[in-house]
Amino acid sequence: MSADSLDARQRRPHRYDATAQGHKLTVAYRGTAFAGWQIQPGKRTVQQCLEDAVAQIWGAKISVQGSGRTDTGVHALGQVASFNAPRLHHATVLQRALNANLPRDVRVVKCRLVSPAFHARFDAQGKTYRYLIWNHAVQDPFTLDTHWHVPRELDLAAMRQSARLLIGRHDFASFTSNPGYERESTVRTMRRASVVREGHALVFHFSADGFLYRMVRNLVGALVKVGKGKINAAEFAEILRACRRSTAPETEPACGLCLMNVRYAKV
Amino acid sequence: MSADSLDARQRRPHRYDATAQGHKLTVAYRGTAFAGWQIQPGKRTVQQCLEDAVAQIWGAKISVQGSGRTDTGVHALGQVASFNAPRLHHATVLQRALNANLPRDVRVVKCRLVSPAFHARFDAQGKTYRYLIWNHAVQDPFTLDTHWHVPRELDLAAMRQSARLLIGRHDFASFTSNPGYERESTVRTMRRASVVREGHALVFHFSADGFLYRMVRNLVGALVKVGKGKINAAEFAEILRACRRSTAPETEPACGLCLMNVRYAKV
Repeated sequence: MSADSLDARQRRPHRYDATAQGHKLTVAYRGTAFAGWQIQPGKRTVQQCLEDAVAQIWGAKISVQGSGRTDTGVHALGQVASFNAPRLHHATVLQRALNANLPRDVRVVKCRLVSPAFHARFDAQGKTYRYLIWNHAVQDPFTLDTHWHVPRELDLAAMRQSARLLIGRHDFASFTSNPGYERESTVRTMRRASVVREGHALVFHFSADGFLYRMVRNLVGALVKVGKGKINAAEFAEILRACRRSTAPETEPACGLCLMNVRYAKV
Repeated sequence: MSADSLDARQRRPHRYDATAQGHKLTVAYRGTAFAGWQIQPGKRTVQQCLEDAVAQIWGAKISVQGSGRTDTGVHALGQVASFNAPRLHHATVLQRALNANLPRDVRVVKCRLVSPAFHARFDAQGKTYRYLIWNHAVQDPFTLDTHWHVPRELDLAAMRQSARLLIGRHDFASFTSNPGYERESTVRTMRRASVVREGHALVFHFSADGFLYRMVRNLVGALVKVGKGKINAAEFAEILRACRRSTAPETEPACGLCLMNVRYAKV
């Protein structure tokens, strides 16, 4: 996922075409066959698919902005995208037209006409990510692309205890993998950090005002170490307090991660 | 799925190697990348993958029998397979060894050592199939390979009323697609025919002592016609009573179908 932060909101472009109609899309995609969200030359990306569909409908190249990037293999049920374009259709007609021009692994699940000032990235106030683990000795052939397989039994109570330590305002520098963001703040406010067992699956939810690069996957990796008994709650707390990138555990597989929701002030 | 019937049980081979150990496997597979269960030259099939894994372990070609065929794209959570081979390992060791030699879209979920007289096909006394429909205007990118997409709203109460007519002993000739089975009985006893809504999905379950070729998919197709109001309960009953293959509706997509369970007398 991208590093999104309060800082980013300072960089909002000052000018937009106020005569155009703002469009807000809620987008679901199965990330398996995508090189992530962001347009890259020669790669199949979600943003490219959306811009292609928009170009089919408006007959012009129009830039589509997401709330943030997602990495290769990461899924979304509630990614949000925005673009400005002349008003052509009612929202429901437009949703159908977009879906008719999109591959089946991307769907516009909601479409709203909004102010042209709305920007999916700069107006985002928070996000919720889900991470899924298949926690059973035998991998499930149906969850290969959506769950990280951890065959060993995990101590759920210990994981929950450590997850609770994440709630609140913290410097999450220990849980990012990107050395390129040194000058930006790594402080975020976590509103939810939960893990429950559903059958053989473990379901994590993280809600915060923003996430650092690979933060959710690093958090899950550290919590699984707690679940395996490799580190205890005190050691987990120490990693968080350390605020040092070098202490971060390895990044866990992308396939378990899903962007569930992006929060905005009323638009 | 294969046409399996009481008739089939008469064709049990009379001889087996009683000095070998019988092996009973419960197998799950995601059917998407398979040309079905049964070995066919040049095709990727589940039976071939299992025979390859068995050959790796025993160093010999050993025939592996399934409870019945499944078609291209059809899934299984509880297919049963059997083979006879010299006793090499405990069941748990064997399960791990087989899974280590299988592609990730096939898993042995259970392994038991049984009498060499056990035969997955000839001893089967009944099966349960599930069929999934994604019943929402917008297709879900995560269920493309597991659900048939029916965007239109369906009358669940009417579908249930018609499904109940299937319970009991009937000639299901109207619901098979294969003209090659004319000399075999098309009478089966249906013990369960249910449909429930779970979120945006419709979940069908059918349990019977045997199923005719494409019977579940044809039953679901006819029930969806009821749900759309294209035929009513009386017309549905008339199709069942007609016992004519020509009255069968089109076969519905394979991807919604999953073999859940095969029932045996105690082995």
